[in-house]
Amino acid sequence: MAFKSTLRVDFSMLDPAGVVYYPAYWELAHRFFEESWLAITGTDYPTIIDAHRLGFPVVKNEATFTAPFRYGETVHCKLWVESVGHSSTVWRYEFSAADTVQRWSAEVVTVCVDMDSFERIELPEDIAEALRSCRKD
Amino acid sequence: MAFKSTLRVDFSMLDPAGVVYYPAYWELAHRFFEESWLAITGTDYPTIIDAHRLGFPVVKNEATFTAPFRYGETVHCKLWVESVGHSSTVWRYEFSAADTVQRWSAEVVTVCVDMDSFERIELPEDIAEALRSCRKD
Amino acid sequence: MAFKSTLRVDFSMLDPAGVVYYPAYWELAHRFFEESWLAITGTDYPTIIDAHRLGFPVVKNEATFTAPFRYGETVHCKLWVESVGHSSTVWRYEFSAADTVQRWSAEVVTVCVDMDSFERIELPEDIAEALRSCRKD
Amino acid sequence: MAFKSTLRVDFSMLDPAGVVYYPAYWELAHRFFEESWLAITGTDYPTIIDAHRLGFPVVKNEATFTAPFRYGETVHCKLWVESVGHSSTVWRYEFSAADTVQRWSAEVVTVCVDMDSFERIELPEDIAEALRSCRKD
Repeated sequence: MAFKSTLRVDFSMLDPAGVVYYPAYWELAHRFFEESWLAITGTDYPTIIDAHRLGFPVVKNEATFTAPFRYGETVHCKLWVESVGHSSTVWRYEFSAADTVQRWSAEVVTVCVDMDSFERIELPEDIAEALRSCRKD
Repeated sequence: MAFKSTLRVDFSMLDPAGVVYYPAYWELAHRFFEESWLAITGTDYPTIIDAHRLGFPVVKNEATFTAPFRYGETVHCKLWVESVGHSSTVWRYEFSAADTVQRWSAEVVTVCVDMDSFERIELPEDIAEALRSCRKD
Repeated sequence: MAFKSTLRVDFSMLDPAGVVYYPAYWELAHRFFEESWLAITGTDYPTIIDAHRLGFPVVKNEATFTAPFRYGETVHCKLWVESVGHSSTVWRYEFSAADTVQRWSAEVVTVCVDMDSFERIELPEDIAEALRSCRKD
Repeated sequence: MAFKSTLRVDFSMLDPAGVVYYPAYWELAHRFFEESWLAITGTDYPTIIDAHRLGFPVVKNEATFTAPFRYGETVHCKLWVESVGHSSTVWRYEFSAADTVQRWSAEVVTVCVDMDSFERIELPEDIAEALRSCRKD
């Protein structure tokens, strides 16, 4: 099942045209990503990082910006896992506002690393299984 | 001719693993983009925005992260224009460190908008011509 | 009555020592400030900015950092108005974690400006009155 | 002797009023701080952090915002050390633009910590001596 959550547009995300500045979309995406771990795997992301010593750096990402977000709007995120590899995970994001029209979509590929060595490692099987269950529908 | 410039890795870009956090790459890319306007078109970006009232929002971007940047390193950017359309521009970025090995590459598609209405408009011909001359080699 | 709210520590706020990087405290403070307007005045901050065309730039701020926030913690904010002048407002912030021990406190002085001219103006009386009622206790 | 340097105002620092958003001043201050270490002590800040394992978290800061910075301007920073204690250092910052009129000034108190334990330690004597020599005039 896809993970869904919302975040307000913060003043700091706005550019002089009054719309969300594009690197801020990736900050938003990361905030949703962090929040999704507890729902998807049963373990919160700080525990994954600090206790399990796992990291998930991005190796590839791409995004399409269809319509801007403005101040006063709320970002509605739908996030799911497209596929799971040996070490990699393909994540999909869709952002819309209250009108439900898609404004931004993205695909992010992460790999699993040991946070101490920063070396790529295999995804632990319980995490891989939980990620595989986070489907779009 | 491609535009080349350098920026230090700032402390604020680092994550707890001691590497540059991925949204920070887009901030870096935007700083190089801003700086490139004077070299490419003869007009600095603040003048483009504030006096000419043109904006260049991103409609699509994608990036590949090959190796991380760490604190103390300098980001060497090579930036060029892949193609120029009616309103759109396709930009390419390559980031490397002193060792010249590519660590990050990206493609960004911008459209030209009127900064007051935020409506898409045609690229002014003098700017389109200058952008077309910013080739990889 | 003071305004109270909470925000998670985001990954992007962390520095390589694993604690919240100090400019991020001001980002957090601004997010709480934005959120407080609806509770204090009955009007949300985007409406204040975009419809009423009022802005509240900072003219002075100071903060004391008593203990760091770490990943996985939640920032509990208590925010109130210390005093209201002709155009100025003195805001106070106290941040603690679940243990309720104060980790950060700040005083911020804003002035009221016309968002179009950026000139200092008098605080509208209804806003001034609402702000005066947001006391510590 | 005070340390002096300059940085452009970046697009990402601007708010919808077209002026630098106030947390961005602290980001700017930190960039100047990082850059100053090589000039003041002969050792660059990444080496201080990563090789010497010293950190300098802020325990107190305050700032006065006299006039805003706008896009296209360059921030001219003058930075010096007001005093040096057992573990603490009092830093002063003055930001102006090309017109040399002061727009922002700040005082920041840091303490020296062991980056691994994050415990407060005594400033190494060679660093304390170098810091003491960085006077306003």
